[in-house]
Amino acid sequence: MKIAIAGAGAMGSRLGIMLHQGGNDVTLIDQWPAHIEAIRKNGLIADFNGEEVVANLPIFSPEEIDHQNEQVDLIIALTKAQQLDAMFKAIQPMITEKTYVLCLLNGLGHEDVLEKYVPKENILVGITMWTAGLEGPGRVKLLGDGEIELENIDPSGKKFALEVVDVFQKAGLNPSYSSNVRYSIWRKACVNGTLNGLCTILDCNIAEFGALPVSESLVKTLISEFAAVAEKEAIYLDQAEVYTHIVQTYDPNGIGLHYPSMYQDLIKNHRLTEIDYINGAVWRKGQKYNVATPFCAMLTQLVHGKEELLGAK
Amino acid sequence: MKIAIAGAGAMGSRLGIMLHQGGNDVTLIDQWPAHIEAIRKNGLIADFNGEEVVANLPIFSPEEIDHQNEQVDLIIALTKAQQLDAMFKAIQPMITEKTYVLCLLNGLGHEDVLEKYVPKENILVGITMWTAGLEGPGRVKLLGDGEIELENIDPSGKKFALEVVDVFQKAGLNPSYSSNVRYSIWRKACVNGTLNGLCTILDCNIAEFGALPVSESLVKTLISEFAAVAEKEAIYLDQAEVYTHIVQTYDPNGIGLHYPSMYQDLIKNHRLTEIDYINGAVWRKGQKYNVATPFCAMLTQLVHGKEELLGAK
Repeated sequence: MKIAIAGAGAMGSRLGIMLHQGGNDVTLIDQWPAHIEAIRKNGLIADFNGEEVVANLPIFSPEEIDHQNEQVDLIIALTKAQQLDAMFKAIQPMITEKTYVLCLLNGLGHEDVLEKYVPKENILVGITMWTAGLEGPGRVKLLGDGEIELENIDPSGKKFALEVVDVFQKAGLNPSYSSNVRYSIWRKACVNGTLNGLCTILDCNIAEFGALPVSESLVKTLISEFAAVAEKEAIYLDQAEVYTHIVQTYDPNGIGLHYPSMYQDLIKNHRLTEIDYINGAVWRKGQKYNVATPFCAMLTQLVHGKEELLGAK
Repeated sequence: MKIAIAGAGAMGSRLGIMLHQGGNDVTLIDQWPAHIEAIRKNGLIADFNGEEVVANLPIFSPEEIDHQNEQVDLIIALTKAQQLDAMFKAIQPMITEKTYVLCLLNGLGHEDVLEKYVPKENILVGITMWTAGLEGPGRVKLLGDGEIELENIDPSGKKFALEVVDVFQKAGLNPSYSSNVRYSIWRKACVNGTLNGLCTILDCNIAEFGALPVSESLVKTLISEFAAVAEKEAIYLDQAEVYTHIVQTYDPNGIGLHYPSMYQDLIKNHRLTEIDYINGAVWRKGQKYNVATPFCAMLTQLVHGKEELLGAK
């Protein structure tokens, strides 16, 4: 399959390498000049479970994409949420009516952005439990195992979605076709929509947050807002199960001692966050559906306030 | 007039000294042993607009109050909000059916506590614009001018309230009898209920907070919750005027560069805050009146979370 990875950060690089190893024709697209330069010079270098792997993959900046680039069968979207729109605006020349897009971004509401550039019939959505770390320009660290769940959002996309599952299977990505991937996306958004914003605003790690007497009420109220909005999209979250799932992350012997990615982005690295695509998306959708989401609204605004105060870029 | 000051911190000491200078018989009650010891040894020492003043006032701990203490005409409540209940429980022996109490605490809901110990007819409420600083045990700094507004909460208390105004007038406290002091209390609570919690959670001063693009929405939403609850108590806040009043505090040439008292209590000194008597009180009252106050609920819980994380006492 001819595949382009739109957003070749840590996770995009993992998929690029594994799909390349699986015999596919992979092109990377990324906007970071040093990353492009390093990959063009040395290839994409990975510490792949302790073994060095070098993949010589073509890489372009979004601006370099024009009608002369070869068309691809599938574009896998793995940008930062706030860069998705600009990326797809720039790579429009490579999108034909035959091009499918698989969106693997965390968060909510990305279909609304993609539908501006891609017919709904050609959009697949998914969720990945793989991990990946970017070590520097052209270098990633890929440890452990994971899986990918994916689904077409329009019934007509199912045939292609199953082809993608097949291709991912051969690449060792442990894919599964889901008949309800949007449930999994909302469930994962609940985890990010509680721990990310709250640990960032309270300046604590996941275990410290979980130990607070107020954590239960804050988390349950936020989940209830996600559930009320999800219901308007015909997704019926099991709130008690989601809460239990979140409580499991508090374990200091698991990921409890970690600081969520938003904390690392904002508090450590003074980068803008993805809050508008998690709690902010629930808030926007809530306004559209006339569902009150005050905790999401307040948390979104507090995180934006913190971004300003820290001069995040 | 025979007056006891229940809570002889900075503001209680100011009132004690000024009322003593005004010819009244003043007794202090406070729970800080070092403060009691210093005042018993050296008197209460004030830097009073640059001049040293020493007032030899009797001081007791709440536990020392018994039936042998002389009865007083007026008890002025000036404890920390969270200490009010314990204070009045301890000093019950000095409260007769003739004893009036004037509550000058910031925040909301203190009448509910006082009514456990004092008949409603004997409760006065007020608000002060005087300032005062505690410099150490037995030492306060009293600069500038201020005023006090006060009112009986039951019609039958008006006669005594006017006597108190007279006594305060002679002591230079610039009192005024108000026919709507509860409006002023709610208006002041809006200032504390926005700047205190938000600057504490966002870790910024008042001017920095005011400069944030999100400040307008956060402040207006919180004011709207205060207003909705106040309305249930027949107090009709002018939300636009309150917002303008808060915006004026952002001025760096005014108090903008200050950190609110809650910030100083919690972030600097790791002390428990009065959030339960500001946003927390609006939240509790909202539950009682069936009025949604989610921003107050979330802010209260975030501040309690921060208290836990900082080991506040």
